[in-house]
Amino acid sequence: MSSFKSIHYFIALTICSVAVSITQVCAQDVYAAYRKDWLKKAEEFKPVLQETIKKPIGIVRMEKDASAFQGWKAVSAGGMDQLYNSSFNKKNSGIVVDFGEHLTGYCTITLKTRRSDMDAPLRLKLTFGEVPAELMTPFDPYPGGLSRAWLQDETITVTVLPATITIPRRVAFRYLKIDWLGSSSNFEFGIADISFKASTSVTVTPSALSASTSPVIKDIDRVGLNTLKECMQTVYEDGPKRDRRLWIGDTYLESLANNYSFHNDKLTKRCLYMLAGLANDDGLLNADVFEYPEPHAQKTDLLDYCFLYNVALKEYVAATGDKQTGLDLWPVAKKQLDIARKYALPDGMMDYEKANREWWVFFDWKDGLDKQAPLQGITIFTLNQTYELAKLLGKESEVADLPAFAKKLKDAAHKNLYDKSSGLFVSGKDKQISYGSQAWMILSGVASKPEAQRALKALPGVSNAVKPGAPYMYHYYIAALIASGLDAEAKQAMIDYWGGMIKKGADTFWEVYDPNDDFKSPYGFFPVNSYCHAWSCTPVYFIRKYPEIFQR
Amino acid sequence: MSSFKSIHYFIALTICSVAVSITQVCAQDVYAAYRKDWLKKAEEFKPVLQETIKKPIGIVRMEKDASAFQGWKAVSAGGMDQLYNSSFNKKNSGIVVDFGEHLTGYCTITLKTRRSDMDAPLRLKLTFGEVPAELMTPFDPYPGGLSRAWLQDETITVTVLPATITIPRRVAFRYLKIDWLGSSSNFEFGIADISFKASTSVTVTPSALSASTSPVIKDIDRVGLNTLKECMQTVYEDGPKRDRRLWIGDTYLESLANNYSFHNDKLTKRCLYMLAGLANDDGLLNADVFEYPEPHAQKTDLLDYCFLYNVALKEYVAATGDKQTGLDLWPVAKKQLDIARKYALPDGMMDYEKANREWWVFFDWKDGLDKQAPLQGITIFTLNQTYELAKLLGKESEVADLPAFAKKLKDAAHKNLYDKSSGLFVSGKDKQISYGSQAWMILSGVASKPEAQRALKALPGVSNAVKPGAPYMYHYYIAALIASGLDAEAKQAMIDYWGGMIKKGADTFWEVYDPNDDFKSPYGFFPVNSYCHAWSCTPVYFIRKYPEIFQR
Repeated sequence: MSSFKSIHYFIALTICSVAVSITQVCAQDVYAAYRKDWLKKAEEFKPVLQETIKKPIGIVRMEKDASAFQGWKAVSAGGMDQLYNSSFNKKNSGIVVDFGEHLTGYCTITLKTRRSDMDAPLRLKLTFGEVPAELMTPFDPYPGGLSRAWLQDETITVTVLPATITIPRRVAFRYLKIDWLGSSSNFEFGIADISFKASTSVTVTPSALSASTSPVIKDIDRVGLNTLKECMQTVYEDGPKRDRRLWIGDTYLESLANNYSFHNDKLTKRCLYMLAGLANDDGLLNADVFEYPEPHAQKTDLLDYCFLYNVALKEYVAATGDKQTGLDLWPVAKKQLDIARKYALPDGMMDYEKANREWWVFFDWKDGLDKQAPLQGITIFTLNQTYELAKLLGKESEVADLPAFAKKLKDAAHKNLYDKSSGLFVSGKDKQISYGSQAWMILSGVASKPEAQRALKALPGVSNAVKPGAPYMYHYYIAALIASGLDAEAKQAMIDYWGGMIKKGADTFWEVYDPNDDFKSPYGFFPVNSYCHAWSCTPVYFIRKYPEIFQR
Repeated sequence: MSSFKSIHYFIALTICSVAVSITQVCAQDVYAAYRKDWLKKAEEFKPVLQETIKKPIGIVRMEKDASAFQGWKAVSAGGMDQLYNSSFNKKNSGIVVDFGEHLTGYCTITLKTRRSDMDAPLRLKLTFGEVPAELMTPFDPYPGGLSRAWLQDETITVTVLPATITIPRRVAFRYLKIDWLGSSSNFEFGIADISFKASTSVTVTPSALSASTSPVIKDIDRVGLNTLKECMQTVYEDGPKRDRRLWIGDTYLESLANNYSFHNDKLTKRCLYMLAGLANDDGLLNADVFEYPEPHAQKTDLLDYCFLYNVALKEYVAATGDKQTGLDLWPVAKKQLDIARKYALPDGMMDYEKANREWWVFFDWKDGLDKQAPLQGITIFTLNQTYELAKLLGKESEVADLPAFAKKLKDAAHKNLYDKSSGLFVSGKDKQISYGSQAWMILSGVASKPEAQRALKALPGVSNAVKPGAPYMYHYYIAALIASGLDAEAKQAMIDYWGGMIKKGADTFWEVYDPNDDFKSPYGFFPVNSYCHAWSCTPVYFIRKYPEIFQR
């Protein structure tokens, strides 16, 4: 995409200046060593997981209910003794056990003989589900676009009883369905115990909200904390069921929420180092990385996530005062600015068409969203935030052009994207009006405060305005409302949207939520959606950062 | 069924005679200790399994072929490199790997990434089959009578590559089918290696047959040895796929074959001790026992198997000269005679109706077989063999009544069951003519040699004669032919029956074989049949015990 001359030059200059004759070779070697060092630091900060043994709280019956989320609700149907004190066979196949909360980790089931002698192996299927309908929808034939293997059903064969079996795969769930697939009719067996080793890297209990906080906000905060807690493993995962990995966008939002709740700064640091350590040779970041078998990147050029790395780093340094990490990683942040420089046209508009051909420009799971205005906005936002970072690190001189660069883009945006008559920002040749465009024009400062208020107030009345597709975009919408001083609207929007998930039974917040379509899935099959998703945790950040809005 | 006074008395007398005042309490304690001692000895003789790493020899394509066994044949379709050097996906799902021989143990599969990054778990199904049709017949919905879990299909979810996965379950098979159930379309993975840790307690290579042995007999011997080798694990198993446990009937035939081939006398001794150690409180034996989690019996009152324990013990002592074991276990053998005494009527006929109400009288997997004559025959046979055992141990005085008892039953049998006009033995009120009745009347000595020859020669001409249902009964038929001096007929019968299995592709001999019905199953579903079954191994015994018949 763009060269890596500058970063290589920087490193070569720093480390290899005494051996100018071999600079060229050395530069490559040193850059490898540089990234190696970042990865080493990422490993140093790897948290020890906190493991807790959890027990199911009871049995539930899944009932069809058109008014319930996705048409199914869990109804309490007895204590665990009912299961533990009876034989398990074809008749009670499909029983569902409820752990009462979303958990991530490893399930262990103990089976024993109850009558006569086991004279043949037995076969069970264990299906782990985050939401009721996930357990009640047949997985096969699988219609989804992602791997079928994300779905959490595991078949086990047991040859000797008593047996205590731990499913090797890590699962994320609240409900466990147990299907009988076969056993000998000459004997009876039973389930003697089910336990779960739940893991998280959260170690602290966040402070309580003020006593004046409304119950609904308390609920949203609680569910948001659970969501974040579940996603905080040895990295910030996007979702513990799926994708179970470190994405820049999720990390940005998780670390914001963490700054105001669990304060696991080492985890943020680890993730920032790991992402930097797995940058491409040209210094540009990959959008997501894997921890195992060893840390490695998925080659993913996602433009907006590269920018958000800078913002996440700035927020980390600002929250912790850890300048050393900021300075270590500054070369990476500076490098991402190349993207802005490459696609900025002489008139101050970003060349969205070209960027969109060469990158994945994401912003939201929303078909049809025009991303010209969001891209213009996030670029300005990133330039501003990176300059803030430079100031925190005393590096303004290295990016002295940023304020003027940002202003140029801002002026162009206002000139080209603001429709004075409607008071709304438009995007693309069809002048699309969307929540995303307004949000990013506001967060970038393109809109003045009065313009921002006017736009956001006008939005609900625009029938064809493109709404957010997922909680991720909703975050930026809430942030824009707050930035515009529309405190009551911000609070109400949060209550409507995240409170809406709670009304529908959410234990953790979902990857995708459309109040009008319970079955929405970017992957063609709703059970493969993640129902505990990092980017949905940010009410925690808003509620705790702005107590004057949310805690009274 | 009957009391255990005599055996208790024996033990109490031996061990507790110095403390007569507590004889009653002591008797029970001592009997427990007695069995405990037998179980302890069984553990002492537990063999260390010989483990060998095996590799598949190639890929096969399963082809429909009406002339092939069960309608399917395996056709060579390339070397393993073909699999190892290509990506595995939906297109090559269902590929079948051939190990070239029947193996028992644990399968390990190694998977690796071939292109791009694994960004989702993958899901495979591994199905292990002893015969081709087993892999090509859908298992579900499962129509069989035994546990569905006997079928050897295991589903695995793999979350990180490279991965080396050992299926926890022990399997018995020749062919492995690998089905693709799901993976991400963003990357490619492949199977890098498949290996198998094969186990047996066989440690020696049996002597070669004489050079003059015909190829078909050599083949039968080879397949018989493979069958026996596979069934010889830490006990004599009936079948390594199913039931994987120690049955008296199978042990009897396996130990006969072992005496003439692998000479693993310790294994026979272990099994005899284990069966004795797991007798009922009344001293009567259970037909089968399990090794795990600790040795324990399946409560199974199978009349003919109790009798055959005595015969197996006698054969063991005769073959090894190990009188000590014979003396140790003599009380158990003597105890089984109670069954004969209980059901023998004053006229010398066994009360088959009563015995059949109170016991499982087995003899063969053959619907409609009348078991009056077989029961009469096996009882006499057992009385004779037990008296032989007594003579080997110097215990004739303890069972001095046996010769007269046997003669009484023999005379009654000849009088009531021999049809002089046809020269055939009949069974039951419908005077059924069966191979089983002739065999047992001959092995018991009821038939004189001329009568035996006449009966066996007449049999093939009797259109409604009930034929053997399984190789187990065929063993006794071959033994009867040999006992009658019909050597050529014995050889031809073996060639027709066991050679028939080889012609149909047998790598090991089957639990059930009906030359006219490939799909015969006692369990309602042929894939759950065992295709490597101990009781089918006895050609090894016949061929090697009678070289003058089979090896020229």
